[in-house]
Amino acid sequence: MSISVLKFGGTSVKNISRIHHVADVIAQCDSKKCVVVVSAMGDTTDHLYNLAKQCATIPNKRELDLLLATGEQVSIALLALTLQEKGINAKSYTGSQIGITTDDSHSTARILDVCRETLKNALQEHDVIVVAGFQGLSESGEITTLGRGGSDTTAVALAAACEADTCDIYTDVDGIFTTDPNKIPEAQILPSICYDEVLELARVGAQVLHPRAVELAKEYNLQVRVRNTFKPNHTGTIINGETKVERIRKVSGIAVDGNQAHVTFVGVPLDFPFIGTTLDCLSKQNVSVDMVSQSIDFATRTKCVSLAIKYEDVDCALLSLEELKTSCAAKELVVDTEVAKVSVIGSGLGNSHQTSAQILSVLEDHSLYVKLLYCGESRISCLIPLSAANHATALLHREFRLHEHCSNDLVLTA
Amino acid sequence: MSISVLKFGGTSVKNISRIHHVADVIAQCDSKKCVVVVSAMGDTTDHLYNLAKQCATIPNKRELDLLLATGEQVSIALLALTLQEKGINAKSYTGSQIGITTDDSHSTARILDVCRETLKNALQEHDVIVVAGFQGLSESGEITTLGRGGSDTTAVALAAACEADTCDIYTDVDGIFTTDPNKIPEAQILPSICYDEVLELARVGAQVLHPRAVELAKEYNLQVRVRNTFKPNHTGTIINGETKVERIRKVSGIAVDGNQAHVTFVGVPLDFPFIGTTLDCLSKQNVSVDMVSQSIDFATRTKCVSLAIKYEDVDCALLSLEELKTSCAAKELVVDTEVAKVSVIGSGLGNSHQTSAQILSVLEDHSLYVKLLYCGESRISCLIPLSAANHATALLHREFRLHEHCSNDLVLTA
Repeated sequence: MSISVLKFGGTSVKNISRIHHVADVIAQCDSKKCVVVVSAMGDTTDHLYNLAKQCATIPNKRELDLLLATGEQVSIALLALTLQEKGINAKSYTGSQIGITTDDSHSTARILDVCRETLKNALQEHDVIVVAGFQGLSESGEITTLGRGGSDTTAVALAAACEADTCDIYTDVDGIFTTDPNKIPEAQILPSICYDEVLELARVGAQVLHPRAVELAKEYNLQVRVRNTFKPNHTGTIINGETKVERIRKVSGIAVDGNQAHVTFVGVPLDFPFIGTTLDCLSKQNVSVDMVSQSIDFATRTKCVSLAIKYEDVDCALLSLEELKTSCAAKELVVDTEVAKVSVIGSGLGNSHQTSAQILSVLEDHSLYVKLLYCGESRISCLIPLSAANHATALLHREFRLHEHCSNDLVLTA
Repeated sequence: MSISVLKFGGTSVKNISRIHHVADVIAQCDSKKCVVVVSAMGDTTDHLYNLAKQCATIPNKRELDLLLATGEQVSIALLALTLQEKGINAKSYTGSQIGITTDDSHSTARILDVCRETLKNALQEHDVIVVAGFQGLSESGEITTLGRGGSDTTAVALAAACEADTCDIYTDVDGIFTTDPNKIPEAQILPSICYDEVLELARVGAQVLHPRAVELAKEYNLQVRVRNTFKPNHTGTIINGETKVERIRKVSGIAVDGNQAHVTFVGVPLDFPFIGTTLDCLSKQNVSVDMVSQSIDFATRTKCVSLAIKYEDVDCALLSLEELKTSCAAKELVVDTEVAKVSVIGSGLGNSHQTSAQILSVLEDHSLYVKLLYCGESRISCLIPLSAANHATALLHREFRLHEHCSNDLVLTA
């Protein structure tokens, strides 16, 4: 029995006419059976959240989940009705009804289990089952939600549970691009990308798919396709594991995150265990640090410590940073928010020192100086002045030949 | 442990500011524990129904129930959040979560059971539990709704299950009036009315409370109060069983239903079993007949048969009525839609022939001739010309002294 999982995001079911369009896309699916996962219509979730904020300053998360879960419940009923009207044997299921069990972390719940028996029976009785994304039921019987983008995770979890042949994430973009096409017109759609690269993209703010969904897909080695609801003939981008043959393409894409802050402590006494103390102190406030560097001046027996945090964390972190400065008697604390993190994504970058050298020299050739550098397994990030972000991206995009048509760069095994 | 049940209708929770007001009303409740039942916000149910109608010509009732049930789920979450913000130990429950089991008649489900254990535990853990009205879970695990006004039924069922001390139905009117105050300015609020009278009011179209809720209240001999959300100091109208002392008031109110049609067959052969055949034929089409009369002309050996049906049933009934006329060779079929049914409501009217005589003579004194008459246990209805409806109501209202202050008319036992 061939089974397809199709997930449609909020913009795809924004209004009744789009729901009719989505029903047409489903009707044209070749598979014998379809599992369709939908998000809430348009900005319903934001609207409901705003209502909650008018009732309580910090809304209780259990009540909030009960409230937000209604958004998807509306979508599934309307889509099921539309499919039935087209003569399709369809039925809708809430997360609870299809047997999605989560832990009890309201608003960020993790799927613990999908009842294969329930799913199997539903697929035996109906050709299309329409499932509410983003939600589940905790073991204590409470309605939970998986957090923003959680419908992607629902789709992948269901695809794994029913051993689906395909799992297509329909959205309002054509696929995953080499970089933001709104800023770099040369950006190309990637025909394929691997799990780790997508996870790195999410980590640096270019969220194309919910990270938990990618992790799950990787765990089950499940191929996921990102495609445009309104261009059903486009192939989109396939997300899968590493290809079996040697990769020709080293770099898959470039992501820019302009919401960064560069924090520098000048004149920290050499013997003070500064980095450890700082990271410990920031992590207690849920402030994550991506890049750190330290330079030592043996003449004055001081060091200069520099780190990057998210722009929105600055307010929260500043008080502790000031206290740290005082406690270690550092000379100066400088916070620069006019910075951006430009990240080059590609699995296997960690094996090639050549790439980081290539990045630094391209940028320096154009007088763009890197304030901080991070080299990871699948990502190299540079902190540079915000004003230079687009220029740097364009240079690197061309340097790694991402403007050339990508489809021949990878030999796909799928 | 004193328990109060409070039910708030859609207009009472129409927007966030009204939800805050409702939370204040609840906060002022004297009882130790409160069970609060809420409807969907404002016209949410109509809005959702309209969306469904844009998806399917005749929406599947199972999907429709799943859709409509979200309305109340939104209300309970928002009200619970608002109560929590005021420091009240509150929690929301969907119909399913509080253990309301119904039959599987989607859109008109009947409550089969309320889980006393779940309700008891909820009330032990929380001071206020906010329950979604109008909905339940069928034994096969499907979400069901109880039909329009079903939240009243939820409130009464919960009040019976937790043996509540009071059950107050908060709405946007001051209580139950002797007749429509918009048409007869002399109309008064009834301090109390008995179950049968409210059921008769519902039967003639003046629905103040869902009939199923009244039946349940009668079954459990549970006193229900109808009161205004926006005038919490007003006492409203108490609905209960017959008072122990003899009733002083004979008539409680007068209801007018302008959506009626008067159907007359002239010259029906005397030996044709006309009434039985007609009622049988109409009931098959779900057309109910309230009043029937027959007069015989022995000279021509024919009869004239006259009946009242609802205005909206005319289209549906007309074809069969025409066929009936042909099959029995009646001379004429006349349908008059310019009629109204004026009903005098009062329990024990059936024991007093005097009242119907009194009604007929008052109307005839003013040249208002009754086309059809129905005398029941708690109701006497007259079909009269539509143009005379307000005049007739005013005459009868004064004849039965309903304009006088009602509060002394009944000795309450409550």
